[in-house]
Amino acid sequence: MPAPAGIAMRSATCPDRRASQASSCRRLPPRGRRVYASVTPTLQPGLENRTAPSWLAEPLKHVVKSQQFNAEALEHIFKVTREMEEVRAGTDAAHQLDGAIMSTLFYEPSTRTRLSFESAMARLGGTILTTESAAEFSSAAKGETLEDTIRTIEAYADVVVLRHFQAGSAEKAARAASIPIINAGDGPGQHPSQALLDVYTIQREIGRLDNFSVGLVGDLANGRTVRSLAYVLSLYSNVKMYFVAPNECRMREDIREYLSSVGVDWEEVDDLAKVASEVDVLYQTRIQKERFQDRPEDYDKAKGKYIVTTDTLAQMKKDAIVMHPLPRVDEIHPEVDADPRAAYFRQARNGLYVRMALLKLCLDGRTLSH
Amino acid sequence: MPAPAGIAMRSATCPDRRASQASSCRRLPPRGRRVYASVTPTLQPGLENRTAPSWLAEPLKHVVKSQQFNAEALEHIFKVTREMEEVRAGTDAAHQLDGAIMSTLFYEPSTRTRLSFESAMARLGGTILTTESAAEFSSAAKGETLEDTIRTIEAYADVVVLRHFQAGSAEKAARAASIPIINAGDGPGQHPSQALLDVYTIQREIGRLDNFSVGLVGDLANGRTVRSLAYVLSLYSNVKMYFVAPNECRMREDIREYLSSVGVDWEEVDDLAKVASEVDVLYQTRIQKERFQDRPEDYDKAKGKYIVTTDTLAQMKKDAIVMHPLPRVDEIHPEVDADPRAAYFRQARNGLYVRMALLKLCLDGRTLSH
Amino acid sequence: MPAPAGIAMRSATCPDRRASQASSCRRLPPRGRRVYASVTPTLQPGLENRTAPSWLAEPLKHVVKSQQFNAEALEHIFKVTREMEEVRAGTDAAHQLDGAIMSTLFYEPSTRTRLSFESAMARLGGTILTTESAAEFSSAAKGETLEDTIRTIEAYADVVVLRHFQAGSAEKAARAASIPIINAGDGPGQHPSQALLDVYTIQREIGRLDNFSVGLVGDLANGRTVRSLAYVLSLYSNVKMYFVAPNECRMREDIREYLSSVGVDWEEVDDLAKVASEVDVLYQTRIQKERFQDRPEDYDKAKGKYIVTTDTLAQMKKDAIVMHPLPRVDEIHPEVDADPRAAYFRQARNGLYVRMALLKLCLDGRTLSH
Repeated sequence: MPAPAGIAMRSATCPDRRASQASSCRRLPPRGRRVYASVTPTLQPGLENRTAPSWLAEPLKHVVKSQQFNAEALEHIFKVTREMEEVRAGTDAAHQLDGAIMSTLFYEPSTRTRLSFESAMARLGGTILTTESAAEFSSAAKGETLEDTIRTIEAYADVVVLRHFQAGSAEKAARAASIPIINAGDGPGQHPSQALLDVYTIQREIGRLDNFSVGLVGDLANGRTVRSLAYVLSLYSNVKMYFVAPNECRMREDIREYLSSVGVDWEEVDDLAKVASEVDVLYQTRIQKERFQDRPEDYDKAKGKYIVTTDTLAQMKKDAIVMHPLPRVDEIHPEVDADPRAAYFRQARNGLYVRMALLKLCLDGRTLSH
Repeated sequence: MPAPAGIAMRSATCPDRRASQASSCRRLPPRGRRVYASVTPTLQPGLENRTAPSWLAEPLKHVVKSQQFNAEALEHIFKVTREMEEVRAGTDAAHQLDGAIMSTLFYEPSTRTRLSFESAMARLGGTILTTESAAEFSSAAKGETLEDTIRTIEAYADVVVLRHFQAGSAEKAARAASIPIINAGDGPGQHPSQALLDVYTIQREIGRLDNFSVGLVGDLANGRTVRSLAYVLSLYSNVKMYFVAPNECRMREDIREYLSSVGVDWEEVDDLAKVASEVDVLYQTRIQKERFQDRPEDYDKAKGKYIVTTDTLAQMKKDAIVMHPLPRVDEIHPEVDADPRAAYFRQARNGLYVRMALLKLCLDGRTLSH
Repeated sequence: MPAPAGIAMRSATCPDRRASQASSCRRLPPRGRRVYASVTPTLQPGLENRTAPSWLAEPLKHVVKSQQFNAEALEHIFKVTREMEEVRAGTDAAHQLDGAIMSTLFYEPSTRTRLSFESAMARLGGTILTTESAAEFSSAAKGETLEDTIRTIEAYADVVVLRHFQAGSAEKAARAASIPIINAGDGPGQHPSQALLDVYTIQREIGRLDNFSVGLVGDLANGRTVRSLAYVLSLYSNVKMYFVAPNECRMREDIREYLSSVGVDWEEVDDLAKVASEVDVLYQTRIQKERFQDRPEDYDKAKGKYIVTTDTLAQMKKDAIVMHPLPRVDEIHPEVDADPRAAYFRQARNGLYVRMALLKLCLDGRTLSH
């Protein structure tokens, strides 16, 4: 069975419709046919060295969706991520991307994600061109296509981190671009670096990505985070999933069917305490108020149903962890923060390292445009 | 005959009303009487070296209007621009402006122009202080004059790139400033780096700036781009101009009279196909919807009248080019993009190089304020 | 008598509620109990060297309020500030904070203050992550606490410069943070770097901080600037203060009583000319229109009452100075600018040096988080 709609894998390759133009552009040597969807980037060992030789045939082209990675690709990315944890200011490692320019092109504000990418770039020596609210981008207002915008920006930057309100924007941008596009969230669509940092955190905290159990709690219907996470975890063996959600926010059928079709053992459970006592990872999420606009009482009911407190912690295994994509409102009590099992701020920090790795892998082996 | 109103040349020099203050400011040595309007910066060969000796009497002071440059000055700027194309990350050339600080002070958003300047500065090693929406600048809201704002900002930066909604703002800022001001567009007024990049692109693409013909197409009444371009091209010999515009958007009389007065051969033509077959440069522009607010049907008619398509290309000479200041809406069909004669994305890239040259020339030979 | 409310000294120390979490965070070694309010940072000589040894027990932790500094601490900060005036691009001094990352987290726009801090960081080699309008910060909109935001941002930056619309925000942030928080204004609360730059300017311009007289003019009721300045100047000996304010804007009783209680000689005077002839420092401020929203005629009356003109200058001593926190509207006539005693633009520049010093002192001796 194919991956569920919305996170569907596409086998289309990218017809290089700009081939002739590319060859008339004197600066950027034409690159080979670009294959970015559903095809695992064949990441070679030794990618670390960005002045690497030409045998480095396939650096990471774009980061557009969680489904573009298989377990092997993730393993390589996480290996590089682990190295990024060790980058220290003042060392050569902190100058790996010296001279590279990143444009954070945000059509809707997301300060947290933007700062995370910008800090990642800064820690590797790169330069940042920042755009907090490209929605006011006068060109867009005048009717310019995203493709034209990208083809203009690519003269100014070596990599674009794109946040857009419209699903599919990152893929559209990647099709037009001759530089890497990293999707930092496109509306209800994808936010792949979030999925990667979640999986990396699990590996980093509990030491493995198979043979464990995870409870996904909260708004499972609307959160792209948990939907993507469930999908990516299906790449690993023997991951037992519990879904704990208010009735209005149940995990949707597409994901449930998909998981079943690939043999993942999942279960919907009402009792948070019971799940807490079983799992290695308790992944809490925020009930999204904006989904209950005309039903405030339903929101209050849903919101109050599953709260992680010190009582929940008391149920949990000694080496289990609590995760949360943040921001949090009331769904994890602040008293929980002091417990070493509260992993969510470490998870945020891991986002930094994952994004450093993605930037490095995207820029590795590329000739800068200048 | 004088240059037309709106792009009029002014012979006023800048009375240094701040002389006594300047001398009481311990850090910045008082500079000579500043002459920035209508007077060609006497650019010396050897400007490249910013630690150049004091014989470097006249670096570029400010960039406020197209009319401040004569053909000799443009030749020098374009020579430096050509060198900028060769600046590569990791070389000494990429550190020419190390330590210099640029403030992009944008009172209205123009992401494209801002990023172009910021990328230019980054590629030369400088640092960027960015302001996307200085209109919310609390000081302006409180009634501070632009002059006071500039005198404050000049403590923080070595050069200011100013975008303002009011014509004449750049000149006003330059009068107050002890550091270079680069006009990145002041309302309906000037946008000199756009004019420079247009002329540079013609030279770079067809190899010369005299003895050629150009068709200016689209909104010739309202576009400051084509008005400035027509003016600057009048500095060169034997440039034949064709104006192709819907009736509502004809080139205005001030420019037409000015061109005649300085002996430029121009002609208004209805038939785009015919012009396309004659010219070396076809410069298309967007019909500005905002000019037709109460006449939507007139807009639709004007907008649909002159579209560059592959049919137009078929009429054109083999070594002619299509230019466009971007953003484009429908006035050039996307199929045209693949043709090597479609020069508009290369034109955008040239904007980067021209801005690198302007920053370098403005900062060359200056003592940084720190 | 205690310091007046609003600028009250608090003796509370910071219970390190996150101790257990800190110790589970592998990267940042747990730091000692943090004491930041009302306790003078014991600044050691030799702080200049940020790779300084561990005997450097007490770098500046946070900058949250004017009252955290005593005269000894200010003396040290001003000594470092004086050194900052000599930092030149291209020298080692300009690389003191290489590798350090500053996040300017501004919940309300204040371009002037933001650019001043960003320029300060740039001049010391650090990197800037900028946020012009964190009010749109999607996380805040979703109900995230400031504490959670800070704990996330601290993974990305080594120091946060916070501007917030709510009094007390900086202290709240500092309590949560494991990195230094510098208050760049929290609503009607504190703006300590402004107070420091004012005092530094007096010392720099008239050569001493005791045995002088100062006239505070304008909106003394609502301006946090003059309130803080009066407080800080009370730390020095024999500073005579004159308050010159329209009736609606008199210095409030809390400050007046506080000054009396610590033996400061102050006087309310009606006649600006008389005060001008007496003082060494004439500190003019803007009447804040926003305080007179429903009484426009009262505003006009208050605003017109005390204007500094060349006539005022004629009254003043030859070596006295005019200060103003800027922005200015009409309360100092532009003709005054040309007089060497007009110190307000030099005062703005001093803000840069003070902020360089604060950044250096906050980051000195810290292990960067990366």
